[in-house]
Amino acid sequence: MTSVKVAILGFGTVGEGIFNILQEKREQFKTQLGIDLDVAKILVRDATKQRVGIANTLLTESIDEVLAVPNLDVVFEAIVGEEPAYGYLDKAIEHHVNVVTANKVMFAKFGQVLQEKAQKYGVQVGYEATTAGGVPVIKTMENILRVNDVNHVQGILNGTSNYILTQMRTEGISFETALKNAQQLGYAEADPYNDVSGQDAFKKLMILSNLAFGQQPNWDDVEVVGISAITLQQVQEADAKGQRYRHIAEVGLDEDGYIFAKIGPQLVDATHPLYSIDGVDNAVSLDTNYIGKLTLVGPGAGMYPTASVMVEDYADMLVKKPALVTI
Amino acid sequence: MTSVKVAILGFGTVGEGIFNILQEKREQFKTQLGIDLDVAKILVRDATKQRVGIANTLLTESIDEVLAVPNLDVVFEAIVGEEPAYGYLDKAIEHHVNVVTANKVMFAKFGQVLQEKAQKYGVQVGYEATTAGGVPVIKTMENILRVNDVNHVQGILNGTSNYILTQMRTEGISFETALKNAQQLGYAEADPYNDVSGQDAFKKLMILSNLAFGQQPNWDDVEVVGISAITLQQVQEADAKGQRYRHIAEVGLDEDGYIFAKIGPQLVDATHPLYSIDGVDNAVSLDTNYIGKLTLVGPGAGMYPTASVMVEDYADMLVKKPALVTI
Repeated sequence: MTSVKVAILGFGTVGEGIFNILQEKREQFKTQLGIDLDVAKILVRDATKQRVGIANTLLTESIDEVLAVPNLDVVFEAIVGEEPAYGYLDKAIEHHVNVVTANKVMFAKFGQVLQEKAQKYGVQVGYEATTAGGVPVIKTMENILRVNDVNHVQGILNGTSNYILTQMRTEGISFETALKNAQQLGYAEADPYNDVSGQDAFKKLMILSNLAFGQQPNWDDVEVVGISAITLQQVQEADAKGQRYRHIAEVGLDEDGYIFAKIGPQLVDATHPLYSIDGVDNAVSLDTNYIGKLTLVGPGAGMYPTASVMVEDYADMLVKKPALVTI
Repeated sequence: MTSVKVAILGFGTVGEGIFNILQEKREQFKTQLGIDLDVAKILVRDATKQRVGIANTLLTESIDEVLAVPNLDVVFEAIVGEEPAYGYLDKAIEHHVNVVTANKVMFAKFGQVLQEKAQKYGVQVGYEATTAGGVPVIKTMENILRVNDVNHVQGILNGTSNYILTQMRTEGISFETALKNAQQLGYAEADPYNDVSGQDAFKKLMILSNLAFGQQPNWDDVEVVGISAITLQQVQEADAKGQRYRHIAEVGLDEDGYIFAKIGPQLVDATHPLYSIDGVDNAVSLDTNYIGKLTLVGPGAGMYPTASVMVEDYADMLVKKPALVTI
């Protein structure tokens, strides 16, 4: 049996989901992968706070203490915002530790740098959870890009916006009422700016851009429009014509090979691959040269969708990299 | 530079697609993967027949001649039917050669045996192209099954049937007329039995069953119904109520943990994940325990969709298995 030491950075909803899955699946991993995944440290802001089911010795406020764990093989990062997340992952890679992140704001900006650094240090970076929640768009793209070219990516990347647009159409309510409903159901934050302004979708789109095209457009050149200006009357007029407003983030190459990206509401009809995506789901549609059009649909957020794809990121690393510490 | 010898078994549409992609991508593979993929042999029924752009020295009618190629690393099998395909792949594995297949009829029956044998001989089996054409359902399932359980699989696995049902609804034509159109467009064979009877979808479903549940139901216990009994009147009455007929293949575990499977037309409404899948597309919807419902949509057949996912199967093996012959 190979023993693998694991750390979790951040213990909010997603961090706790990772911890729970690693406990629930511990025996299965022993049998199927031949490894014992042992959570050795959890980085939190307040290590004195009691947490049900978590031994206090697991908790620390110090990244150095986390990285001092002997034979640490991976950190799962579920912190919000650029810093200290980027600094932590940068340091982890220097300690030859694999990293798995759900942090889209950090990864949109620093993903490329982290991946290059990881290659230099012989470790891997998993970031499936940064984009489209439980929808495995990153691994699908990594896989098809080995042979196919992706020419155009279109996605519904913000579940809150999609929920609001869906509610306006199906319930005949205004943007403001639909937003309040979303907040009451926990689909939208108290401050909904990032979601309804398109900024959240923008970050995710930049991550997909990097993967599909090896580059991002100049951020200042990207038109980012949210959904707050769409009226119930517009939604109903569109519906009467068999059309729907979808908040679509898209990136592609134009005829001259230049990258373009835009984010905003689009009117689509029933032939569009994103027409039927309702509620809090996310979806990504990829135009490829050999396969043609591929569309993936699933939950765009949530504790277990997000946490489980992060653990899958690490399981995938294990398959690719057999060298582990054997006790 | 590492040189890899490759063989193609069968040179119909898919075999030719593989050959073309390997030529088109040869320089890219050298740069990105550091390997030179060299097609060393192509197994055909008549090696004396001239083929444009193919040197006659590449062609052979003998599997033994194929397997005698020094340092052969993979065979791409694109033959129709159980034999001789199964015997060829069995032999290839005994020669420590990786295999990639698009042969659903063979793999539904012998997939499990081939995979076990491959494990014993330290080689890999790729079968993405057996099911749902260019839709990467096999790799997606392999990936999510490392952490998630899949409880229920529902798919539109036969593009011909879906095309016919779509045409009946959108064009107001009978099954017979829609079938004739499909035949004229090359979407249906001269003998459409396998497609419209559900037998083609059945084979693909059995492959998904094996992957999701590690088992198949007793084939004789599976109800397999095709689409030929559906009338235009039924389709139109459903449409008036906002419902659609979809030919759905499904497999899952019942409450007692027993496997069940059935294939046949189902009436679905707009909330169903397969409601909006029109034309020759295939789609698979997976119910999972952590992620929830995931749906993948894309082309269910075709020369380049099928051939490209086969080459991706092999590229994936290379990432997982670094040991190659270096010249």
